[in-house]
Amino acid sequence: MIDLTGRDFLSSLDFTPEEVRGLLAFARDIKSGRVRPNLAGKVASLLFFNPSVRTRVSCESAMARFGGAGITLNPGKDTWNFECGEGVVMDQNTQEHVRELAPVLSRMGHLVGIRKSELITVGLDKAAVSSSYAELAKDEFLHRFAEFAEVPVINLESNRWHPLQGLADALTLQEKLGEPRGKKYVLTWTWHPKSLPVATPHSQLLAACDLGMDVTLLHPQGWGLEPEVVRRARARAESQGGRLSETHDSDAALKGAVVVCAKEWGSLDYYGRFEEEQRAKEPLRARWMVDATKMHSTDDALFLHCLPVRRNVVVSDAVLNSTRSAVIDEAENRLWTAAAVFGALAGG
Amino acid sequence: MIDLTGRDFLSSLDFTPEEVRGLLAFARDIKSGRVRPNLAGKVASLLFFNPSVRTRVSCESAMARFGGAGITLNPGKDTWNFECGEGVVMDQNTQEHVRELAPVLSRMGHLVGIRKSELITVGLDKAAVSSSYAELAKDEFLHRFAEFAEVPVINLESNRWHPLQGLADALTLQEKLGEPRGKKYVLTWTWHPKSLPVATPHSQLLAACDLGMDVTLLHPQGWGLEPEVVRRARARAESQGGRLSETHDSDAALKGAVVVCAKEWGSLDYYGRFEEEQRAKEPLRARWMVDATKMHSTDDALFLHCLPVRRNVVVSDAVLNSTRSAVIDEAENRLWTAAAVFGALAGG
Amino acid sequence: MIDLTGRDFLSSLDFTPEEVRGLLAFARDIKSGRVRPNLAGKVASLLFFNPSVRTRVSCESAMARFGGAGITLNPGKDTWNFECGEGVVMDQNTQEHVRELAPVLSRMGHLVGIRKSELITVGLDKAAVSSSYAELAKDEFLHRFAEFAEVPVINLESNRWHPLQGLADALTLQEKLGEPRGKKYVLTWTWHPKSLPVATPHSQLLAACDLGMDVTLLHPQGWGLEPEVVRRARARAESQGGRLSETHDSDAALKGAVVVCAKEWGSLDYYGRFEEEQRAKEPLRARWMVDATKMHSTDDALFLHCLPVRRNVVVSDAVLNSTRSAVIDEAENRLWTAAAVFGALAGG
Repeated sequence: MIDLTGRDFLSSLDFTPEEVRGLLAFARDIKSGRVRPNLAGKVASLLFFNPSVRTRVSCESAMARFGGAGITLNPGKDTWNFECGEGVVMDQNTQEHVRELAPVLSRMGHLVGIRKSELITVGLDKAAVSSSYAELAKDEFLHRFAEFAEVPVINLESNRWHPLQGLADALTLQEKLGEPRGKKYVLTWTWHPKSLPVATPHSQLLAACDLGMDVTLLHPQGWGLEPEVVRRARARAESQGGRLSETHDSDAALKGAVVVCAKEWGSLDYYGRFEEEQRAKEPLRARWMVDATKMHSTDDALFLHCLPVRRNVVVSDAVLNSTRSAVIDEAENRLWTAAAVFGALAGG
Repeated sequence: MIDLTGRDFLSSLDFTPEEVRGLLAFARDIKSGRVRPNLAGKVASLLFFNPSVRTRVSCESAMARFGGAGITLNPGKDTWNFECGEGVVMDQNTQEHVRELAPVLSRMGHLVGIRKSELITVGLDKAAVSSSYAELAKDEFLHRFAEFAEVPVINLESNRWHPLQGLADALTLQEKLGEPRGKKYVLTWTWHPKSLPVATPHSQLLAACDLGMDVTLLHPQGWGLEPEVVRRARARAESQGGRLSETHDSDAALKGAVVVCAKEWGSLDYYGRFEEEQRAKEPLRARWMVDATKMHSTDDALFLHCLPVRRNVVVSDAVLNSTRSAVIDEAENRLWTAAAVFGALAGG
Repeated sequence: MIDLTGRDFLSSLDFTPEEVRGLLAFARDIKSGRVRPNLAGKVASLLFFNPSVRTRVSCESAMARFGGAGITLNPGKDTWNFECGEGVVMDQNTQEHVRELAPVLSRMGHLVGIRKSELITVGLDKAAVSSSYAELAKDEFLHRFAEFAEVPVINLESNRWHPLQGLADALTLQEKLGEPRGKKYVLTWTWHPKSLPVATPHSQLLAACDLGMDVTLLHPQGWGLEPEVVRRARARAESQGGRLSETHDSDAALKGAVVVCAKEWGSLDYYGRFEEEQRAKEPLRARWMVDATKMHSTDDALFLHCLPVRRNVVVSDAVLNSTRSAVIDEAENRLWTAAAVFGALAGG
């Protein structure tokens, strides 16, 4: 059984591809009932700065099924606001410093999970970006918290990464494909009325690369992912006997694909200029939804999406309702991979 | 022990009167400590679209006492909005379809509870009806969710039914009356500043009918319950050797009653026309509160109310504080009946 | 093992100093792993009328670690509003009376915790006092709830007391000082942009007095604590071989101190006149922050603060980051003392 006791899980880059595979094996064993993660009497404090269904329920359920408990906090709603700057005179709107919050939550439980994502759009027509992407991608609160925490910290989605989603995708790929190595995987951008964060596609891309797949990142010009993330994902793919290419050509990308993972995300070029982006991407809407025609040009590909998904906007009913859609299994795997991560980090 | 493994509980009509009695017997056994429902390591996801004290605490406590856990979600507050229409192009304000939500929550846990009631009034002076009663009574979200769920779905209060309240009332009637069959039970309308939903009185009426009681539904002209519900409750009463009559005559109704269950609800005739209803019911206020005088005209009747109750509006202090009030026992029975339902549906 | 089965814990004054010491011994034994409080299958309903991090997480974690569960309710947010007046005609904005709420929550679980504090200021520039301090200090809801409850009620912070904080401070004092009796403890007022409640310093003061320490209460003229609380704390101190003196002279107070506990609180004289108080206390800001210079004039004193704390406003970074700061241990002790209280009150 994999032992990652005391380690943080802020991104899959925190682990070697071998450690990632170890976590996946542990998740499979938990799912099959062969082993139980040792979570009895253990507590995970879960800080949700953003709303959540799958992450919250999968994390709380993972703890509860094995005798532990998740305690969900909604900072700024049922608590106050947190400071992470150094040397700040805190006479304004922050009431607690991460230098206290992190060790205190560490003493109360055995694990801490944090979801903190500066959403790009609020509702359908408003941008809410407080800073540049380069600045936000530092995930300062998360890293500062981890620095001062005394127990493992798990990223439940930051501005840059959503590693639990990556793990769940990887588990699904293993289950459905047997050995994913060398098989063709496409991560395709899709149109969406809002400009969604890039954390999830970053972690999804990395997951397929960690499995040594033949990965294609497909998106319109101007909607690429963070170059440094792509560079590191490519290096991981190559280290595992796979590769990563990037294209705007949908036909070339889909041909021969055995997996199509759809994801909507906002442009980093237009970051914070939501109305401009909206106008620029309007012509893309019709061509970038995943529909049956697109799926027919693949090699009978499996369809993945992290959910929630806007039906007939991101992907058509026909694709989602087909037997090739694995989105429900993929979501279920959030539970088993969370249980594996919690168990491995909390010591068994 | 009753086995209803895998069944839904959207209304007591989902079960035969014999199955209802089986659930009540299971609840009594749990309450007395003779048996424990097998909920260890089991998880119930509880979706509360509306506020709750008794339902939430009773459900979470029922799970926790027997080794399981309830996970409460407040959709639209700490999550997003859900779609249940078929073929909808989801480019507006719903972010997740029940076709995904239901199977995903099914995979995360063992049971799903849903409270979704389109409240008629918000605060003391505003109507908030989005549709006709006939439309809302379809409880579309609940039924669509149950259709796509892979685990038992429990109705925690919809527009039409509140079956857990019905069960708790039935258990209280059995405890207090021994064999309730043939005994006189009155469900009386009471005045209230707001127009409350009919789900609770529907389920309370059905509960007394399922026990074969001599049931009287008492209300002012224009404040009847849904005719189809009354018809079905009557048929169930008659099948159990009881009967159901309806009257506007308080004196005749209360004479000989051994149970008075008070409930405030809005008129279906005035549905959505709150200000009109408020004017029409103003003259009823003085005559329709349950007070000591009314209770004296019964056969030393037991007093029931589902709570919360507005004191000296719906029922006087004297009645609530008397030894004939069973409202606290009735509320406690929410816990034991919830434990019985969860245990029976989750497989023991 | 101490047995306080069925008792309430609304203030440490509910217990004798010997009982307080018994609770602290129980907390130490739980912390060291020598004993486990018997909380398996037990449920605590936790009503938070105000936001919380430490109290909520420590209470939920204390229950969960030992096989029980805490159910957090946020009244007025995910529930309705409660009435506690006698004989009230409830046709306005309260929907449930404490005469029902208290016994009902008693039936659902084994313990009830309540945080209800009428905050003096909302945000940085608004007073939100609904009544005089004399009126609010009666903690009417809490006491009425305890009157009608059938299980132990625990004060999670009221207008007058925060006894779990007091216990955690006392445990920390014992751990750090060995035998605290006779040693010099200073509770010092500090400047803060808001006018914070006095409940916490009341309970901190009482905690040091209960341990028989040589207690000094230090604050500017006009910012004293409630005289009756000070009188009772002094009597407890003297009964334990300690004493309590009050001063405005910082130099005299700090000299020889082995503990400095910092706390910001609002003036009872200015109660509800926030803007006036703000002007009056502006000149105090510079002189009343705890910094390294102040700490140097003590006898290498330990630094305590209940957290959250505004850095460089209430206390400087240098003090908080020093090895003499015990604020993290103090916060951790919230967990162990909560476990001790829950265990002792719920019967072992």
